[in-house]
Amino acid sequence: MAEFEYIRWVRERVRSSDRVRVGIGDDCAILDVPDPRVLVTTDMLMDGVHFVLADAGPRRVGRKALAVNLSDIASMGGRPLAAVVSVALPRRGTQQLAEELLRGMETLAEEFACPLIGGDTNTWNGPLVLSLTVLGEPGPCGPILRSGAKPGDWLLVTGSLGGSLAGKHLDFTPRVREALELQKHCTPRAMIDLSDGLAGDVGHLCDESHCGAILAADAIPIDAAVQADRQTPLEHALRDGEDFELAIAVAPEDGNRLMREQPLPGVRLTRVGDFRAELGLWLDEGGKRRRLEPRGYEHPFEET
Amino acid sequence: MAEFEYIRWVRERVRSSDRVRVGIGDDCAILDVPDPRVLVTTDMLMDGVHFVLADAGPRRVGRKALAVNLSDIASMGGRPLAAVVSVALPRRGTQQLAEELLRGMETLAEEFACPLIGGDTNTWNGPLVLSLTVLGEPGPCGPILRSGAKPGDWLLVTGSLGGSLAGKHLDFTPRVREALELQKHCTPRAMIDLSDGLAGDVGHLCDESHCGAILAADAIPIDAAVQADRQTPLEHALRDGEDFELAIAVAPEDGNRLMREQPLPGVRLTRVGDFRAELGLWLDEGGKRRRLEPRGYEHPFEET
Repeated sequence: MAEFEYIRWVRERVRSSDRVRVGIGDDCAILDVPDPRVLVTTDMLMDGVHFVLADAGPRRVGRKALAVNLSDIASMGGRPLAAVVSVALPRRGTQQLAEELLRGMETLAEEFACPLIGGDTNTWNGPLVLSLTVLGEPGPCGPILRSGAKPGDWLLVTGSLGGSLAGKHLDFTPRVREALELQKHCTPRAMIDLSDGLAGDVGHLCDESHCGAILAADAIPIDAAVQADRQTPLEHALRDGEDFELAIAVAPEDGNRLMREQPLPGVRLTRVGDFRAELGLWLDEGGKRRRLEPRGYEHPFEET
Repeated sequence: MAEFEYIRWVRERVRSSDRVRVGIGDDCAILDVPDPRVLVTTDMLMDGVHFVLADAGPRRVGRKALAVNLSDIASMGGRPLAAVVSVALPRRGTQQLAEELLRGMETLAEEFACPLIGGDTNTWNGPLVLSLTVLGEPGPCGPILRSGAKPGDWLLVTGSLGGSLAGKHLDFTPRVREALELQKHCTPRAMIDLSDGLAGDVGHLCDESHCGAILAADAIPIDAAVQADRQTPLEHALRDGEDFELAIAVAPEDGNRLMREQPLPGVRLTRVGDFRAELGLWLDEGGKRRRLEPRGYEHPFEET
């Protein structure tokens, strides 16, 4: 199949919906947005960095590429509207690879009513690179920023943390539904998705909210996939990246009610700490407090 | 500079405007759109395919990455609103490379009032990859599609064609202003930007508009950069990619007036042919007609 025909095939697979008018073959997609405030997020994934294509297989890779972007929409409390996808495909086996990537994306796109409305398909001699941009609309509480946490707020997380490399980093469910459901029960003050690890991402919430936080070691829900190695299970839960759960700042009265009611179907909310006026990130282990570096997983960075 | 600090530096360079509220460090940008119809386009550029970083230098590469996306907005007759940019940066010399790429983008972003509102910055051992998504609003005539050309319409192009590899493919000015100005003088029926070469892109207009076209060989404005080699200058003007000029279908009465008035400051409009009911693309050379393959530049495509 020539590239020209293949691109046409991809384009014809692109879905329309009530909100989206896509001129197949036009230079831009046209999206009808229900709210003048449009959420925009973009994430690029590269073979050997964010996934290993040979191990994960193309469907899971395509799914992940969309899922990480949906997770960003979830972290703002938004509802996805549509996605565009750019790919650099290795030349060998291009057609099958592209079809499988697209199928992986489509499954999730349907589940979250986020049609793929366009893209750019390229081939080269390098490894697979995908870059997706997802547009969304704000949820009922409006866009939820990182900057709204206040001293005294409770810090909640969805699900369990750590060990995502065992599989969750590919197969996680972005917390879009949970973030929307949550807004029926409270007004979250600040929110973030856990991509850099709990310590790193709570650090971001603190930075943007100009406050500090203290985590309760005993309360942190450690994922069953975590295996103790040179790091303790707690360290994995604090530092491992790509949990893609939500960390949420809520007023104490909301936190209290949420803990009691557990309003998210199938997903547990856990209070893992509190925000406070004193800057910095702290860990309380059985009454003993120690300072935590607000850092999660980081790539080393080489300069000439 | 650690990656964390570098990303912060990039984020802080990101511009705000009246239309855009960007929570620095938030997971999504928030864009206030003036029209519920949002134009969305995305293009990915890879080192060795769309540019040669060592030859072009990072500023021109950054500029091109934004320019090709602005050209897609222009081809729909739209006005750019904002851009997001994802990059995979080679590990060596990352900081300087990233700064120069960003400076190349910023120049054009300011010129076209298209602020960079967010992105995703990655490093790896592979070559440089950039993927930009640009959002826009429709111009005064609404989104101009590829599908509106009618038999009898005139085919106009802006500027001159061919030989873009000599430099224009990096340094071209996307025809955003021209496409908007044009809509004060007529209602374009169909439009496309010339990225695949005149023959290929007029082929796209014909396909989507369910009609054919005949080009007048003598009328095609050949760029001064075209050099005769194994291909004639005319073949270069027909087949070379990346002119990033506009091809426009207009009603004959509009075409007549546009040719006389030449309303685009500093940019010539030329009638290069006509649309007709009979399908297929034809070339008229001094009264002799021959069929043209509606193909421009294509990458070879290898299958396992």
